[in-house]
Amino acid sequence: MLRTHTCGVLNIKNVGQSVSLSGWVQKSRDLGGMTFVDLRDRYGITQLVFNMETDAKLCEKARKLGREFVIQAKGEVAERSNKNKKISTGEIEIIVSEFVVLNKSNIPPFTIEDETDGGEELRMKYRYLDLRRNPLRKNLELRHRMSIETRKYLDSQEFFEIETPYLIKSTPEGARDFVVPSRMNENEFYALPQSPQTFKQLLMVGGYDRYYQLVKCFRDEDLRADRQPEFTQIDCEMSFVDQEDILNTFEGLTKYLFKTVKNIDVTEFPRMPYSEAMQLYGSDKPDIRFGMEFVEVNDVAQNKGFKVFDDAELVIGFCAEGCGEYSRKQLDKLTDFVRRPQVGAQGMIYVKCNADGTFKSSVDKFFDQDALKTWAEKMNAKAGDLLLVLSGEAEKVRKQLCELRLEMGSQLGLRDPKVFKPLWVVDFPLLEWDEDSGRYHAMHHPFTSPKNEDIDMLESDPGKVRANAYDMVINGVEIGGGSIRIFDKTLQKRMFTLLGFSDEDAQAQFGFLMNAFEFGAPPHGGIALGFDRLVALFGGSDSIRDFIAFPKNNAGRDVMIDSPSAIVQEQLDELKLRVVKDGK
Amino acid sequence: MLRTHTCGVLNIKNVGQSVSLSGWVQKSRDLGGMTFVDLRDRYGITQLVFNMETDAKLCEKARKLGREFVIQAKGEVAERSNKNKKISTGEIEIIVSEFVVLNKSNIPPFTIEDETDGGEELRMKYRYLDLRRNPLRKNLELRHRMSIETRKYLDSQEFFEIETPYLIKSTPEGARDFVVPSRMNENEFYALPQSPQTFKQLLMVGGYDRYYQLVKCFRDEDLRADRQPEFTQIDCEMSFVDQEDILNTFEGLTKYLFKTVKNIDVTEFPRMPYSEAMQLYGSDKPDIRFGMEFVEVNDVAQNKGFKVFDDAELVIGFCAEGCGEYSRKQLDKLTDFVRRPQVGAQGMIYVKCNADGTFKSSVDKFFDQDALKTWAEKMNAKAGDLLLVLSGEAEKVRKQLCELRLEMGSQLGLRDPKVFKPLWVVDFPLLEWDEDSGRYHAMHHPFTSPKNEDIDMLESDPGKVRANAYDMVINGVEIGGGSIRIFDKTLQKRMFTLLGFSDEDAQAQFGFLMNAFEFGAPPHGGIALGFDRLVALFGGSDSIRDFIAFPKNNAGRDVMIDSPSAIVQEQLDELKLRVVKDGK
Repeated sequence: MLRTHTCGVLNIKNVGQSVSLSGWVQKSRDLGGMTFVDLRDRYGITQLVFNMETDAKLCEKARKLGREFVIQAKGEVAERSNKNKKISTGEIEIIVSEFVVLNKSNIPPFTIEDETDGGEELRMKYRYLDLRRNPLRKNLELRHRMSIETRKYLDSQEFFEIETPYLIKSTPEGARDFVVPSRMNENEFYALPQSPQTFKQLLMVGGYDRYYQLVKCFRDEDLRADRQPEFTQIDCEMSFVDQEDILNTFEGLTKYLFKTVKNIDVTEFPRMPYSEAMQLYGSDKPDIRFGMEFVEVNDVAQNKGFKVFDDAELVIGFCAEGCGEYSRKQLDKLTDFVRRPQVGAQGMIYVKCNADGTFKSSVDKFFDQDALKTWAEKMNAKAGDLLLVLSGEAEKVRKQLCELRLEMGSQLGLRDPKVFKPLWVVDFPLLEWDEDSGRYHAMHHPFTSPKNEDIDMLESDPGKVRANAYDMVINGVEIGGGSIRIFDKTLQKRMFTLLGFSDEDAQAQFGFLMNAFEFGAPPHGGIALGFDRLVALFGGSDSIRDFIAFPKNNAGRDVMIDSPSAIVQEQLDELKLRVVKDGK
Repeated sequence: MLRTHTCGVLNIKNVGQSVSLSGWVQKSRDLGGMTFVDLRDRYGITQLVFNMETDAKLCEKARKLGREFVIQAKGEVAERSNKNKKISTGEIEIIVSEFVVLNKSNIPPFTIEDETDGGEELRMKYRYLDLRRNPLRKNLELRHRMSIETRKYLDSQEFFEIETPYLIKSTPEGARDFVVPSRMNENEFYALPQSPQTFKQLLMVGGYDRYYQLVKCFRDEDLRADRQPEFTQIDCEMSFVDQEDILNTFEGLTKYLFKTVKNIDVTEFPRMPYSEAMQLYGSDKPDIRFGMEFVEVNDVAQNKGFKVFDDAELVIGFCAEGCGEYSRKQLDKLTDFVRRPQVGAQGMIYVKCNADGTFKSSVDKFFDQDALKTWAEKMNAKAGDLLLVLSGEAEKVRKQLCELRLEMGSQLGLRDPKVFKPLWVVDFPLLEWDEDSGRYHAMHHPFTSPKNEDIDMLESDPGKVRANAYDMVINGVEIGGGSIRIFDKTLQKRMFTLLGFSDEDAQAQFGFLMNAFEFGAPPHGGIALGFDRLVALFGGSDSIRDFIAFPKNNAGRDVMIDSPSAIVQEQLDELKLRVVKDGK
């Protein structure tokens, strides 16, 4: 071992000991008679001291050390006169008696500091240097800790981790697959899994009862900000359970992670029907760290001569507590916000509830003080509050108001990344109507089971059927979701018919799973949580990229290794493939 | 939850309790007045009882239950009159008061028993049924247990598990890559990793100090028996260490696994130089559960007029203790064994050491009793032993004798799968000569460091240079290996030159790693252990396939899901690819 200790462990108790440390030169300060070098490794920073008086030659040598040089130093632990309370090793320093340069370093293209001067692109190219920075080191440590604790918890609940294959079969349904040409099976392809969905269901048929896996999944989609072509899921499935058992198990996991990793006691984990989430927050992933629930005001807003409201399917708003003094400028900015193409509203109506009990609104022309008072009462507003109201087509206006609510939450500092409010959104619709294809699609997937009490509506009113499907949402972020699966052949057939599958299509695409269901499939259900997203949330960040060691950019490229890249002709020949260039 | 207990937990203490169980019908016995049903789940088997006298209707219904039906049964725990001591629930049974059939089952194509009547192919096609059998269930549980314990141990040693990417870059060196066409980057390809080698080295450059990962790796090779195109490694790397630190760490892991998983105390973990392994066992992965070390007998065997020996580069044999009474037939069978094309020897010489102190050999014509006595002395044989001797070209004859030794070990029952003898084979040659290309190849990989004391021979006698490379071997199986890496640019350049790389080639293939080495690479080294192989060894089996949930066959096919398969034209078009059929 090229060290007796790491750079993070020595303290006042070690004074007088002879030690040997290895690490990187974080910085060095030449104060004439003395030279100080901060030596860094994964575990911390320790100060090395060189003295011109006691060993001029060594001190001269130390002065030549550049940033990020790798050295091994031997010396004695001594108490520091000028203590640094911010770091664990801040009470001591090493009086160095000898050292060797293990490796030199070029000058890094950006500073290896918590706040660096390197731009995104440069840091991606030199990812191995970016990874030396404290914030990224902490992120990857957090990720490691969370994966270990997730496994511990699920192991304690008698789950087996079972590896499912990566080279599987392409299915045209769903998102786009990455495919892998097979050399041994000419003109045939494997696909990389978008999720281990069918395999985990087969494991339930195989009697495995409780399965989990931290597993890479792949989707060849056009990358939006903060999507990755490969991502990691906590993938789970259980047998002989109903929905409540799954919710309780993974509520348990989440609480356990908050407690062990962040020492936070999560006490509340409400369950909210999808319909309520849409009604109160205009979103199936509501951020419940703050209120501002929606109130529908059609009854008090319409038929007063204001055409915009009168023509609207829905007039809806919320009360922003204590914002009654918002200036003209602030209100204009909010109007600009809702008019942005990403939000898409035509305009915004406000009502200020003044301290003196009067009201001031942008529609004073149509609504007198009494009318506005009924608004305020309906929206539970008091003096000093502000009402913000949008109107239009119901589905669209809810989404727009959702954006405005989140914006107000941010402006008012109500979205503290250190506060965590998880919930379950339940009772999702089983189906959603797709305008393009003119038929219903499965909202989760074709194996999701309808609620028993809604099964009678499957053919008569399919849009109203609710599913045994659920999402875990924390702070407005969808962490994952799942469902209780269909395990009855007759019901599955009805579902396929509803979704427009012919018997042949169903057999071709899901044949091996349907065949397995002929041999005693148990009732089962499961969930998949986005691990990258969960870790980012725990780390207090929106960006999953900072929690992945080697992420790809928005074009799906790894700029560090310069991948993907052309392959040699021999490889293509062996695979019996030809690339099409310029359409040829 | 569709059960109050699993089928593996109820015992005499639960007598009188009302319980609810769910599971599969393992078998049912109709004894006229009584019907017994064995209900099975992952946790065990519990006997259900139905009585014609107390509830004829229920009993009639139970009689109709087929094998592998899934049922939920409610009833009371009662003491059994006819106890079964072999299973944990054997003292009790459930007097069933009601039950529901949750799902029916077709008759399985083979019996779900420890010893099944299903052939390999049928069981692969219905893998989900094969997985219900106890032996496979135990194998996957063992795999889960070993992965959990591996992580616990490495976590306790301050290793971080860090996920490296699956979509990486193809390099023409080494084994064949699986490639993945990129849709977003036209005519370019990702490759699936053969190992995370370069990424783990980059993590060391990034200061991560101790990395591990249980990770899938991919190799597009023609599959020999018991090779899989995707396989799992315990992949590790450490900084600021020398070889001994790595050996100690992973010796520690192995001992820990033996103790926690199998309750076996492994005390000895010898280190054996490669040269010694070849000399004593003719193999770089010796099975040291038994002796029969090789003895070279050129000095006593040559120049006695026996042309076969006189012409041979090497005459070598071993002493099979207590086999002096082997019959003519047994010896002929051994001769047939060494003559098999897989072994390839011309013949075998034997010397029986008779109980009366005389000798009987197949070469009595050339060697008198005195001569044979010197053989016996040299090979440490005593009365009652058998000497087996081969001769020929040194390298070949060692391999042939290795096969013979293993065969004798098996015949004599010295290769007990419940006995475990691990060792490290160290000091591998750095390079091996490749006849085809007429140049040296790296025996491990181009970043493996030579031993300091051998560096001077790099150019003058490269074949003699030993590497800081090591393999872990248990019971004759190579579990994995690794090396201390080169981290010095000048030395790396000498290596590339030796291996016939031009500067441009080296830059093109390993550029990003070489660039990283310019920025303060620490001394580092690592290891990769074959996890499938390790689990199979712990499970006492040679076949990794039985320890993988969904393996592929020798043609790389998953016959259950029928993959790989053709993909639709739209997918090919999007990827700008064309398949070549019949050469067109």
